[in-house]
Amino acid sequence: MENPFDDTYFMKKALQEAELAYEKGEIPVGAVIVIQDRIIARGHNLTELLNDVTAHAEMQAITAASNFLGGKFLHNCTLYVTLEPCQMCAGALYWSQIPKIIYAARDEQRGCIVMDTTLHPKTTMTGGLLAEEASALLKRFFIEKRNLN
Amino acid sequence: MENPFDDTYFMKKALQEAELAYEKGEIPVGAVIVIQDRIIARGHNLTELLNDVTAHAEMQAITAASNFLGGKFLHNCTLYVTLEPCQMCAGALYWSQIPKIIYAARDEQRGCIVMDTTLHPKTTMTGGLLAEEASALLKRFFIEKRNLN
Repeated sequence: MENPFDDTYFMKKALQEAELAYEKGEIPVGAVIVIQDRIIARGHNLTELLNDVTAHAEMQAITAASNFLGGKFLHNCTLYVTLEPCQMCAGALYWSQIPKIIYAARDEQRGCIVMDTTLHPKTTMTGGLLAEEASALLKRFFIEKRNLN
Repeated sequence: MENPFDDTYFMKKALQEAELAYEKGEIPVGAVIVIQDRIIARGHNLTELLNDVTAHAEMQAITAASNFLGGKFLHNCTLYVTLEPCQMCAGALYWSQIPKIIYAARDEQRGCIVMDTTLHPKTTMTGGLLAEEASALLKRFFIEKRNLN
């Protein structure tokens, strides 16, 4: 039997988080952190509601996962996030020593790749999974935002 | 009359925060955020106590300052921090658009300068103020830590 808990399954869960952000008028980015096929943390962007630039989806998921694990290192964990992490989030992931980051859409302007943020040597990052779905939601958000203003 | 509220005054307040971290067994780093000669946020490193890599002094100070101001941008603010910010903190400061960062000691290993983190175009960063005091506290911490293990 196929394992239903594959990367696509978990990225869909991250997309559900992004939709929650969208419904709250936030830039729609969502994240989940997984260990042994189990989601231990969820987060979605709340920077506007909390008036706090640090409230990115990944930051909240990192804090929640550490809380669940009872330790600050996210060894053996995978982060699924709908948008390539920014410098801040990639910097936090560096400290967490998380081994695996999977993102959906690229962020060509403010993402950690174009910003050349240093990842932890233990970390691998791949992108593009469900990128179209993640980008479509982001585009929808920005088009509606523009039409409202 | 001289203004008693100069950069040295506020860096001493950041050092007091670093001492609070030291007393709790944390890597001693402290920060304050100032607007119009008034401290609106304080923070000290709590990564061990909170089991959370995101709990750096600056991150807590950014959240507290935004909370005080009721907005996520730290325009017209100055951050005083006893150690050069890391990638994560510099990335958060980027989003905050804070105009001024003053740090004490350099972090040659993990600081944002060696890591080449991008600061916001509106931000200037200077270092070296009370650097010896800040470094001495960090050295004391690491020597004691080594002797305990």
